[in-house]
Amino acid sequence: MSTSRPTIYDVAKAAGVSKSLVSLVLRGSTNVSKESEAAVKTAIKKLNYQPNRAASDLAAKRTQLIAVLIDDYSNPWFIDLIQSLSDVLTPKGYRLSVIDSLTSQAGTDPITSALSMRPDGIIIAQDIPDFTVPDSLPPFVIAGTRITQASTHYSVANDDFRGAEIATKHLIDLGHTHIAHLRVGSGAGMRRFESFEATMRAHGLEPLANDYLGPAIEHAGYTEALALLKEHPEVTAIFSSNDITAIGALGAARELGLRVPEDLSIIGYDNTPLAQTRLINLTTIDDNSIGVGYNAALLLLSMLDPQAPHPEIMHTLQPSLIERGTCAPRGG
Amino acid sequence: MSTSRPTIYDVAKAAGVSKSLVSLVLRGSTNVSKESEAAVKTAIKKLNYQPNRAASDLAAKRTQLIAVLIDDYSNPWFIDLIQSLSDVLTPKGYRLSVIDSLTSQAGTDPITSALSMRPDGIIIAQDIPDFTVPDSLPPFVIAGTRITQASTHYSVANDDFRGAEIATKHLIDLGHTHIAHLRVGSGAGMRRFESFEATMRAHGLEPLANDYLGPAIEHAGYTEALALLKEHPEVTAIFSSNDITAIGALGAARELGLRVPEDLSIIGYDNTPLAQTRLINLTTIDDNSIGVGYNAALLLLSMLDPQAPHPEIMHTLQPSLIERGTCAPRGG
Repeated sequence: MSTSRPTIYDVAKAAGVSKSLVSLVLRGSTNVSKESEAAVKTAIKKLNYQPNRAASDLAAKRTQLIAVLIDDYSNPWFIDLIQSLSDVLTPKGYRLSVIDSLTSQAGTDPITSALSMRPDGIIIAQDIPDFTVPDSLPPFVIAGTRITQASTHYSVANDDFRGAEIATKHLIDLGHTHIAHLRVGSGAGMRRFESFEATMRAHGLEPLANDYLGPAIEHAGYTEALALLKEHPEVTAIFSSNDITAIGALGAARELGLRVPEDLSIIGYDNTPLAQTRLINLTTIDDNSIGVGYNAALLLLSMLDPQAPHPEIMHTLQPSLIERGTCAPRGG
Repeated sequence: MSTSRPTIYDVAKAAGVSKSLVSLVLRGSTNVSKESEAAVKTAIKKLNYQPNRAASDLAAKRTQLIAVLIDDYSNPWFIDLIQSLSDVLTPKGYRLSVIDSLTSQAGTDPITSALSMRPDGIIIAQDIPDFTVPDSLPPFVIAGTRITQASTHYSVANDDFRGAEIATKHLIDLGHTHIAHLRVGSGAGMRRFESFEATMRAHGLEPLANDYLGPAIEHAGYTEALALLKEHPEVTAIFSSNDITAIGALGAARELGLRVPEDLSIIGYDNTPLAQTRLINLTTIDDNSIGVGYNAALLLLSMLDPQAPHPEIMHTLQPSLIERGTCAPRGG
């Protein structure tokens, strides 16, 4: 924790001046009286204050806030993530504050929004196009598979390629041959689509998918599934890129009078709280959001602790199949 | 808005010095060179910079952040609220940051969590037991009907008593006489329960309700509805205190082999995005979250503008019935 080392406040106290004055001295300002400058420099030496922390210390007193950037509150995949982030971080005195991209698109990107609340750390759980790391960015961890993921960024994600393979394989094992994929345009969505295509081809089956590249919203799942099922009545199984779009697909099936799972099998991805409800009872892939949150939090803590050894850059967790009520053998 | 008047940054710019130096001059520090002091004082006069803002400007650069306090991400009633808060506030340069009580219960109350990110304003959209206003609290608006609501607090809510009356009356008008209410322990939940009882009695009907006083979560709706329907097979209609608990009730009906709406009518409250999905297609009461968010945002803006006239303390909006697929005439 930052408390284990002297801050600009300690320097100011020791020098008997204000924090503002210390900042001026650190910036090499000429607007400072000789006596104060001397006092500050003595204090810095005495406390072994490390100037490399100056910038962030000037920016703000530690807030103990961790900003969590997500896409959209109506896609509940993030709920387990936040719960397990909190399970690790709140006992350490940190608090979570969530910013979504959907409601902060007024010109400012989510990173700017996050920085304006001066978090000690950031969990990036959304796709950020043209993501570049500002100098002032505090330690951050990318959670989930993202479009803009550099090998230099600390990240934790489930293996979306493997998860999509498990989902597609499950439908194939149930005897389905006309399997469609409902894709979305997110980083995870891309990986899941690639894996669906590869797995289908590996089994000598023709991959069928929609062209939608927008966000994972229920209504898109509904309209895309409706169009796809009307155009391809031979389809007996759908692998939906997310639980929320799978719920849309379930609505489309109901609309078309198709019984799930008797006439149509549907498998989602994320194992959201909604998939777990008795009403929806969705067969899905557990994206291990709890594990992702847990590991992302530990990773962030070690980055926030200057004494801690350097952690691994990239962490990949295993997804798993959750069998519920929406998949059945072909013609079953 | 704070942008409509000169800030300490404008003064620093005009004087060709740093913000830190301006703060020192404002504090009457003796550690500042005569020339810089003169430059700053000239700039202050020229810009007609108002020192009464100095304190807050020193404390922190305006964060342009609005903290939104909610209960639980898995109850999606807040999504419309946040969207309309954002529709009003982001064009004004504000950003929303959400804090939920479920994941910040590590000793610290949500208000403390909110203050640590230095918001310019706060929207309180959750029940806070023993809520007291700290001196340091920025302008805040209570959104929704809350347990701890003082007549001195600015607030915007839909008329939950009226909404519950509409819901109960709708089931009565459909010919149902054995109507059960699934209650929850929130401020809004209390009002809706009171109104259900009053409306039933006003129509000479015996109100039946569960004893649950916990939070509005889907699983509670499921278990409570399951127990209630097993104990009272005569029940043909359920008014659920929220959409999310209604989804639990729909799961219980499925579990018991009851067809909705043929065997059992279910009406929710909130008109959440989930209620609007083709799959769930829930008849519900629109709690006017969009209107609540819109008015709460305007209220907050006028509180943030010292020039604005004092707004009304309490705003109550009308709820409305949204008929979908989960209610039908008794025995229909």
